[in-house]
Amino acid sequence: MNAEIIAVGTELLLGHTINTDAAYVARELSDIGVNLLFSSTVGDNPERLHAAVKQALSRSDLLVTTGGLGPTEDDLTKQTVAQAAGKKLVLHEEILKEIEAFFKNRPGACGENQKRQAWLPEGSTVLANVIGTAPGCAFETDAGKIVIMLPGPPSELIPMLHHEAVPYLMKREHASIVSKNVHVFGKGEGQVAEMIDDLVQGANPTAATYAKDGEMFVRVTARAETPEEAEQMCAPLVQEICSRIGDCVYGVDAESLEELVVKELSARGMTIATAESCTGGFLAKRLTDIPGASAVIGTGVVTYANAAKEKLIGVPHAVLETYGAVSSETARAMAEGVRRLAGSDLGVGITGIAGPDGGTAEKKVGLVYLALSDGKTVLVHKIPGANRNRTRDWIRYTAASRALDMVRRYLEGISLTEGSPEDGTGLFPVE
Amino acid sequence: MNAEIIAVGTELLLGHTINTDAAYVARELSDIGVNLLFSSTVGDNPERLHAAVKQALSRSDLLVTTGGLGPTEDDLTKQTVAQAAGKKLVLHEEILKEIEAFFKNRPGACGENQKRQAWLPEGSTVLANVIGTAPGCAFETDAGKIVIMLPGPPSELIPMLHHEAVPYLMKREHASIVSKNVHVFGKGEGQVAEMIDDLVQGANPTAATYAKDGEMFVRVTARAETPEEAEQMCAPLVQEICSRIGDCVYGVDAESLEELVVKELSARGMTIATAESCTGGFLAKRLTDIPGASAVIGTGVVTYANAAKEKLIGVPHAVLETYGAVSSETARAMAEGVRRLAGSDLGVGITGIAGPDGGTAEKKVGLVYLALSDGKTVLVHKIPGANRNRTRDWIRYTAASRALDMVRRYLEGISLTEGSPEDGTGLFPVE
Repeated sequence: MNAEIIAVGTELLLGHTINTDAAYVARELSDIGVNLLFSSTVGDNPERLHAAVKQALSRSDLLVTTGGLGPTEDDLTKQTVAQAAGKKLVLHEEILKEIEAFFKNRPGACGENQKRQAWLPEGSTVLANVIGTAPGCAFETDAGKIVIMLPGPPSELIPMLHHEAVPYLMKREHASIVSKNVHVFGKGEGQVAEMIDDLVQGANPTAATYAKDGEMFVRVTARAETPEEAEQMCAPLVQEICSRIGDCVYGVDAESLEELVVKELSARGMTIATAESCTGGFLAKRLTDIPGASAVIGTGVVTYANAAKEKLIGVPHAVLETYGAVSSETARAMAEGVRRLAGSDLGVGITGIAGPDGGTAEKKVGLVYLALSDGKTVLVHKIPGANRNRTRDWIRYTAASRALDMVRRYLEGISLTEGSPEDGTGLFPVE
Repeated sequence: MNAEIIAVGTELLLGHTINTDAAYVARELSDIGVNLLFSSTVGDNPERLHAAVKQALSRSDLLVTTGGLGPTEDDLTKQTVAQAAGKKLVLHEEILKEIEAFFKNRPGACGENQKRQAWLPEGSTVLANVIGTAPGCAFETDAGKIVIMLPGPPSELIPMLHHEAVPYLMKREHASIVSKNVHVFGKGEGQVAEMIDDLVQGANPTAATYAKDGEMFVRVTARAETPEEAEQMCAPLVQEICSRIGDCVYGVDAESLEELVVKELSARGMTIATAESCTGGFLAKRLTDIPGASAVIGTGVVTYANAAKEKLIGVPHAVLETYGAVSSETARAMAEGVRRLAGSDLGVGITGIAGPDGGTAEKKVGLVYLALSDGKTVLVHKIPGANRNRTRDWIRYTAASRALDMVRRYLEGISLTEGSPEDGTGLFPVE
């Protein structure tokens, strides 16, 4: 099935809003094996939208539109698409009731504009909107082309796409699709691609690699008559991929490293404290992004200055003098120092050079030491100074990610790759 | 001049990369008065790209393509566009020399593929690439249509667009464009739009409002023969807008609140310390996003737990017991407590309910108290519980923004709107 996407909205066309909707739709369509040929954006202009819809219906089997379903004057997608597809708009009484009910408990009246949202092209399947008032719809033209209209706000589009539009398409094809994401930290996309080279050749299930924010994931997708069958087709491939990549896999369909760490600590009734220099609070921020983080993190310190490292968490003056603020020794003292201060089970210390300035020949921008103390031993990792032109943001983000991954590995009892004394990495007793 | 954009790349079409290039190009084009009609994305497919280029050249005066200029096999924009526009590719010797020089000091050889980048459509103006090896180009078709080709990576596209492509277009039109952004915190886009309603009607200079991340800005753009003239045309309008909006304007062409605060503190030789509960390190993270932040922030604490508030920064147990962790009194004690701990000039305290859980009828999700102490007095602000469905992220981000804005107002000596004793807001003596 060949498809194309038309995003409607002057704010998208003029670049005031980035068009993320098209990406969401494209990914879901390609996951179910739909062949996407074009994606375009038009403003809130009925003539140009009409022409674009006509062209799409002449060359593609499926047209997905995003945006322009709301109650305001410039929301003209439904009328224009219906006209271009040769369909009348008909009133859906049950939608009208829902819209009126929506406004009952809210300020502002349910005016005629709001009620316009209850009109859909004849023969439409209603796609429910669980967030807003504008329903989506799907219908077939007389020429057998499928048209799906989705709302513009991503918070409304994403659930409707996933829970309404995709099942509508799958039902037509008597097929089900299941996707599984294998999340990996500590190996690059290229490395993983080589490891699973022979596994990405298949047509069903498929496997593909993606890079994202210093991590990567492998998506496995299977297509079958029932979700159960598709699930069963994914399972052995997911297992093989996990076993090849090994302990760098942190989860299948996991949310994020921070969510995993908060959940795992919480499940064990354990607590953690953070001492951050170069990341400046980014690790604490990411942990507390997760609702319920208060069960596992009560204390964090940002010891950006040496004086703060000494005063707040007792990093010895001699350590800072002898080894410098960016050193294995300082990271160790920070991790154990904040653990003691907080009285927590674990303590994490991060110190490094986030740049763009502050690097030297010996200690390059991007050099970061990370330490994790459980009160008995301290584990130290090192991220060497970046060779490539990494940004301050990237260095800080990935340093926090690496700290989260250290905690994950500690909790999962994954044995350590051996450290090197010259590097200051490895396991040390708490002093 | 009517224009359209074609973004080339299978990764864009399939949604693996979000198409931000089109938004950058659209904004710059609309800033210089170009009328954008369509924006589309095609994969790395020569037939479909050829058809899309043909269509664009038949209906628009200007075509801007993004992507597909690199050295790999699927980089086919130049050949395909040149063919569709009826132009031969010719070798540019000086580009070839630059590409060879680029590879002299780098690993990897300068192969034939790399050298292909030195071939451009005949009659092209070369658009320099200050980041990568693939140059862009601009040329005119025999039918008088303008074609501009830009590289895909945003780090290469953005400077080429701004410093090469836009001046190319302006030179053709014997015109210059200048834009000024008036940055506003503390008033919504709707409020500001009403205040400057009559000022957004003009055609040259233009003024338009934009919302972004809980802030808004007004962009003023003028078009004239020289940049100086355009600058002079902007000035009175910018001044009038600033004077109407008043002290909620935090800067013209300012980078961000955090950058402004770090610069202003640094210029005054002042230091700041942060004590965060609901924001969990987000404020410290945003301050330390700014290179050079170490001059102004040495210490921050994340006192997520009550015990941490007491132990680290001396919030009295009685205050927590009597007023609760989310209260004006706790925020005040946090601000002054962290200031004393750090020995800094200023201390900021933030405590609130970020949600999604933890709200009560009295203290709703979104309620945040912010305090700023200079050792003599403490200023307290309150963000009331959100009525609308704000996310945890949004509540945390805007709370940090509000704290930054408090510091800005303090430094600029902006007199306070009066607080209210029942609310716990206003100025209090340090206890």
